[in-house]
Formats: sequence, C-alpha cells, structure tokens
Amino acid sequence: MSKVTPISGFPEYLPSDRIVEQQFLDVIRETFELHGFASIETRAVEPIDRLSNQGEDADKEIYAVRRLGAPVEEKSDLGLHFDLTVPFARYVLEHAGKLAFPFRRYQIQKVWRGERPQEGRYREFTQADIDIVGDGTLPFHYEVELPLVIADAFSKLPIPPFRIQVNNRQIPEGFYRGLGIEDVTSVLRIVDKLDKIGPDKVTQLLTGGGDTAAPAGPQLSAETAKQVLRLAEISSTDASFVEQVRALGVQHEILDEGLERLAAIMTAANEHAPGLLVADLKIARGLDYYTGTVYETQLIGHESYGSICSGGRYDSLASDGKTTYPGVGISIGVSRLIARLFSQGLVKGSRSTPTAVLVALNNEDERADAMRTAAALRARNIPVEVAPAAAKFGKQIKFADRRGIPFVWFTTENGAEVKDIRSGDQVPADPATWAPPAQDVRPSIETPQENS
Amino acid sequence: MSKVTPISGFPEYLPSDRIVEQQFLDVIRETFELHGFASIETRAVEPIDRLSNQGEDADKEIYAVRRLGAPVEEKSDLGLHFDLTVPFARYVLEHAGKLAFPFRRYQIQKVWRGERPQEGRYREFTQADIDIVGDGTLPFHYEVELPLVIADAFSKLPIPPFRIQVNNRQIPEGFYRGLGIEDVTSVLRIVDKLDKIGPDKVTQLLTGGGDTAAPAGPQLSAETAKQVLRLAEISSTDASFVEQVRALGVQHEILDEGLERLAAIMTAANEHAPGLLVADLKIARGLDYYTGTVYETQLIGHESYGSICSGGRYDSLASDGKTTYPGVGISIGVSRLIARLFSQGLVKGSRSTPTAVLVALNNEDERADAMRTAAALRARNIPVEVAPAAAKFGKQIKFADRRGIPFVWFTTENGAEVKDIRSGDQVPADPATWAPPAQDVRPSIETPQENS
Repeated sequence: MSKVTPISGFPEYLPSDRIVEQQFLDVIRETFELHGFASIETRAVEPIDRLSNQGEDADKEIYAVRRLGAPVEEKSDLGLHFDLTVPFARYVLEHAGKLAFPFRRYQIQKVWRGERPQEGRYREFTQADIDIVGDGTLPFHYEVELPLVIADAFSKLPIPPFRIQVNNRQIPEGFYRGLGIEDVTSVLRIVDKLDKIGPDKVTQLLTGGGDTAAPAGPQLSAETAKQVLRLAEISSTDASFVEQVRALGVQHEILDEGLERLAAIMTAANEHAPGLLVADLKIARGLDYYTGTVYETQLIGHESYGSICSGGRYDSLASDGKTTYPGVGISIGVSRLIARLFSQGLVKGSRSTPTAVLVALNNEDERADAMRTAAALRARNIPVEVAPAAAKFGKQIKFADRRGIPFVWFTTENGAEVKDIRSGDQVPADPATWAPPAQDVRPSIETPQENS
Repeated sequence: MSKVTPISGFPEYLPSDRIVEQQFLDVIRETFELHGFASIETRAVEPIDRLSNQGEDADKEIYAVRRLGAPVEEKSDLGLHFDLTVPFARYVLEHAGKLAFPFRRYQIQKVWRGERPQEGRYREFTQADIDIVGDGTLPFHYEVELPLVIADAFSKLPIPPFRIQVNNRQIPEGFYRGLGIEDVTSVLRIVDKLDKIGPDKVTQLLTGGGDTAAPAGPQLSAETAKQVLRLAEISSTDASFVEQVRALGVQHEILDEGLERLAAIMTAANEHAPGLLVADLKIARGLDYYTGTVYETQLIGHESYGSICSGGRYDSLASDGKTTYPGVGISIGVSRLIARLFSQGLVKGSRSTPTAVLVALNNEDERADAMRTAAALRARNIPVEVAPAAAKFGKQIKFADRRGIPFVWFTTENGAEVKDIRSGDQVPADPATWAPPAQDVRPSIETPQENS
C-alpha cells in the first residue's frame, strides 16, 4: 500500500486549525443568509465539455473522473468542477422553471484544479460564492449591493485590514474610445499587467514595442499611452475619482455611464462600509467575461499575495437560446485567505476540541454519575466529555490541558466542584445551573499578533 | 456542449430542500460538538491502492481521478474516497504525533461510489461520522457512549420514530462456540441474511444444503440450527435479553462477556435514551471488520429501506507496524436519510430563502433608505433583502409570497409599517426595535404529516 504521506496541493488541517476554518465558514454563511442569499450545492462533477472551452491551459487542469470498473471503451466524460460559477450556470438553466428570479444564491464548496501547487494555490480548495442572477435583465443596483455583503462578512472576520477594489469596465472602455483607441481589449490586457510589470514596460507594450504574446501591439502614441496610464493610476475611497478622471479631459458617453455607476457604489460604500471599498481604475480582471463592475480584494500589507475575493457583473451567465441570464457575483477564496493567515501566524484555534468541560473520575464506578453530569451540562448547550479513565487528578488535568479544555469537573468530599485549569480557581458547581463564561463555551479564534 | 440534464446518482436540491438538509447537518454537527467531538475534513482523494482491497466489486466502484493534461504514460493513482473511514484511518497514521488520544472526531463530507443508483443509493452522497480512536487500547465504555450520541442527534431531528439496533459480536461467537460450531464466520454470514431470505432458507443453508456462494455449508444438525435461529430472534429494549439467552442453555466465556457488555449498553440506554436502543441479536454487520459492539438504525415503519446509520467497534482501524489504533465509530447516511423523508413527503422547508423581511419600495429613490432599514434589521440578526424594483404593492407582496418570505416592510404616509403577508396583519414598525416572532426569523422544517 502507498505510504502515508501528504499529497501536494491537497492540504488538511489539524483539529485546532479546522476550528478556525469552521468559524470563518460560519461567519461567511451567516452573513450571506442575513443578506437573503439562499444556499445551494451542486454535484462535484460536470460533463467535461461543459467544463472545458475555458482555454487550453485551463482544460489541462481539469480532473477527469472515471469508474475503475468502467469498460475500456467507455469514454470518461465527467470532470470535477474547478469553480462554482460554471456549475451554477448549469444549475440555473436546469432548474430555471423552479427558481424565483432575481435569484440570490450562495454556494460554499470545494473545487479542484490540477495546477502547480504553491502558497495559496491548491489542487483542492474551498470557495464561497454569492451571485444574483436575473432572467432577461438584472438592475444595476445589485452591483452596488454585492461588495457591501462582502465588506460586511470580512468586517466580522479576524483578518488584517482589507480593501475591496472596485472598477467598472465601462470606464476604461469609454476612456479609451474617447482617446480614439479601437482595440480596447488589447489595451486592457496590457494595463491589467501594471502591478506585475510596472509602468515603463506597460508604456513600451502600449506604444507598439509588442511582445511575443501580441507581436504587433496596439501602437499607441506616447501621449495616448500616457493618458491610459494616468487613468490606471487613479483611485479614491470616495466618489472623488470622478473629478480626477474629468481632469484628464477625455469625453465619451460610455465613460460617463461608467463614472456615474462607480460613483454610486462609492457613495453607498461610504455609508455602509466606510473606508473598506476603493475605486481603483487599474482593476481590469477577466475582461472577456465581465461587462460592468469588477471587484478584487487585497489584504493590506499582503498586496503581493494577490486577490482573495473577486468577481463582477456579467451580461450572460447562461443562456438556453430563449432566455439569457445576466448576473453579478463575487467569490471568496476561503482556503486561499486562511492559508495566508496560518502561514503568517495571524490566527489560531483556542483549543483542539469543542469540549469546554472535562468531567473527571475518582474511580470507574463514578462513570454513570459522570455521564449524568455531562448530560445535564449538554442540555444547556455546554460541550462536555467524560474522562477516558479514572486516573490521578494531575493526569486528568493534563488530558484537558493538552486539548485546551478550560474546565475540569471534580467530585470531592464536599460535592461537585469545577476548576478553571488556566487560573487554578476551583468553585462548587451544580450541573443544573453552572456555566462557563460565554467566551469559553465554544472554542474561539486567537489572533496572536494582537496579544504580542 | 452536452445538454443540461441531471446525472443519475448525483442528486441536487432546490433551495427549500437544501434548507432542510442544512438544518439536519446543523443539528448533527451541534450534537457531535456538544459531545466533545472535534471536526476534521480529509481531502477528497486517496491513493487508489489505499482505497482498494475492499473486494473486487467495491474496487470497480471507485472513481479514479486524473488531470486531463497528464501525460498518457502517467498512471492515474488517485481516487475519490468512498467512505470517511479509510481516509480517517490514513489521517490518524499521518498526524498521530500531533493528535491527542483517545481522539474523538466527527467528519461530515461527501463521498463517491460508482454503484448503480436507486432510491437512497447515490453516486455522490453525504455522510456524518463519529469515531473515537485510541493508540494501543480503547476502553469498552466508548461502545456504550457512541449510540447515545446518535440517539441524542436523532431525537432532535424531525424524523419518524427510530430504533438503534445493537449487538455484540461476542454473543453469537460465544454462543456458536458453546454449541460446538467451528466455522463461526460462515454461520454469521448466513444469519446476517435472516431479514432478507427468512428463517426457512437460513435453516436450509445452516444444515448444509449450501448454495452457490458456499456449496458445502456449515452442515449443522437440525437442533443446532434451531438454536442459532432462536438466538437471532431475541431482542429487547432493556437488559432482559440476557435472561432469554440464558434460557437457551448454552455456555461459553466469550458469550458471557458479550452479554455483560451489551447489558451495560442497554442499562445506560434506559437512562439516557429510553426506548431508542434495542438489543437485537440478529444484527451481524461487517463481520471481518468489527470485533465488538455493532450498530444499525431503522426508521420505524420504513424497515425495508434498511439501515440509515451503522457502525461498530474495530480492534484495528489503522496500524503503522508499531502502534495499532482500535476504534469505535458510527456513520449517519445523511443523504440516504433525507432522501427517504423527501420521497415520502415527511419534511419540507418553510421557505426557499433565509430572508424573513422584504423591504418594499414606493419608488427607486427610496432604495438608499431601504438599504438603511435592511442594515438596521440585519444588525439585529434578522435576514433581510430589499425589493428588486419599485413596483405595485401587490407585485412586491407576490415576490415575497413566491419565496415564502413572511414579512414585507412598507413606507407609508404614517411612517414604516410591516405586514405579515400570511395573516394580512400590518403594524407600525421601527427598524431599531421590531423583530419577527422567533420562529419566523429563520426558515424551519415543516413536517406535513403532523399537520394533516
């Protein structure tokens, strides 16, 4: 049998780290539900031809699945989903008649990608997506709403300060058209590399030096390229970016609409999530797909790690020929986010078990009594376990301490007592009324940096 | 692209059914945590050679996974896990140095089996497992504890009455040995078929008629076969089964230990889960694997559906050559359980969304105000969404009604009012203080039969 070893790209957590992950997922789910998103789960597999056509490289990363007992001639036609958007689009088409539109759904599931593993990039990882999908039309105001949901979720999580970067692809498109640029897509693709390759290289590519990927290049004039870069450098945490764009003197009606829409997002953000959203005009992700607002999210101080939560508006999530389903969605890279926090030592679980109270035993005959004590505490929602064996008190305390269990319940000559093994305080206790302090009932997430 | 169609064996739920599934999973998780089980998740894939050797038929059902971009000559050596026990055993070996034993863990995940789909048997389904594993030894009392955890969870779920059937394989083994039977395993295998094939056929097989699977048969005498059947027919909801066995007059020390242990379980059950456990001496599952107590669970009135929750004691969950890890575990077939309840119309979600309150709009200019109202309600943990568009009140009420949203918030000339759209009652409301009745804040599970 193969050796017991980790498989690269398939991380697993020890119990105390899993507690951190669970609490992140709980906060995310709870926030999504407060905002009226309904949960769905889709099957892990889709027909491969539905997963593919995302480009040749992406196709290679798909995991095909095939029954070992399938006849040799049977084609393997199923693959594991690599995101939650493709399955959701299929779900919408399959169940459209039974869904109420606009349909607000969240989906928290594992996805699989056979790419080269590295920090924050796994072959199996968890995503948490929200999308709002209309049948035929979808009003713009949902593009305002969605980043506020994410800001709400992230504000409740023990993570470093973050910024949700927002742009509207109508802004660069209108701006470029106003400059007389015809090949908008090529220019956007180059500008999208700004953070990676810097402004000098971007200028070189824009003015037509070209590269192997786009040998001709868009051949812009030096002044036009300068304007393109000036736009990309604009950002603001309120609607003041509009003035900065206007100052560049470019006019186009698509630009006007884009500015108005992004300004509406920033105005709402200033009320509901002050300081958490940034209008950042260089954000230009997935441009063949997104048609309006686009979102990325950085942890401040961890910018080089890249986005941990991204999405945007798409005019056609799915179409059955008769109806087109436009949508707006954002996906939190939960595994990616948590991996960073763990690797930087920013979070840890307060204990390795849900247990808040260990009921100790003087001798094995006390087990029936101990089970009664445990049941009484559980009936009041306190997680309890009974000691594995009667042993010296020191050994039973060590058992609790090793797991981070804060309280040990003893039976003494004077009756039941409970000890806080951190402080050593021991007090008489009645299982029908005693409870740990609220913060000790469940394990919590510790943020070591805050304590140092 | 392939048509949008369901894939047989990969069920998906609509949002209101998913709400039922989520609440089942929440209750199960909550109960496991109250009993001090720590959550873990394992990767979806294991090396195929670790998954296989469960028998040739089972091996055929394994789903192999393979990157589409993998070189042709690269062997596919990973498969999707088909249960949570094999991955858990590997997890214990891999992380033994960092785990505290006895290790109590729960694991709620999807598993995949390429078997022929039928009601309650899927190719993708969710299991919820608890296991307690020791390093080297594991005391018997955990075999008493585990079914009580399951009884606690099931008692909190809106399911039909159930019985957890318990046996100890030492009882048939000791009894058979006391009868002078040498091939205990063959006899157990035949008795295991009692519910399926009936006592006459079992007698025929036991007395040596044999069948194609076991041509020789154990060749018992008619009287010995009768004794074997008499034992299998014994059951009781308390420890009185011991008397019934003793009345058969068979003596063996292994029998004595089995009876004592099963009696201990029934005594604890009578206190902590009265009437929910049954000592049922015909239960004889997975006999090459389990070595002590075994468990199955039936929904009363749905016996032909088979067990929805099974497990037992195993002396060797895993071994690294130096240390052997004995354990006791039970697995709830969550998908299997829920599928039955849905197909029989026994449960449904009270609505198709978490939303409790829809904030209606007189006109689009009110959206900013409506977002403030929504935020104020959410801050008090009330799920809210704002209407997609200003429309006639009737249309907005219909929007809520279609989703089962119980309350619609209006702005009238007299200020804010909230309408219970089920009763039509409408009252003045302040977003800082108004709340729906507790049972309406979250969707719930309705049990239609109870209301009929």
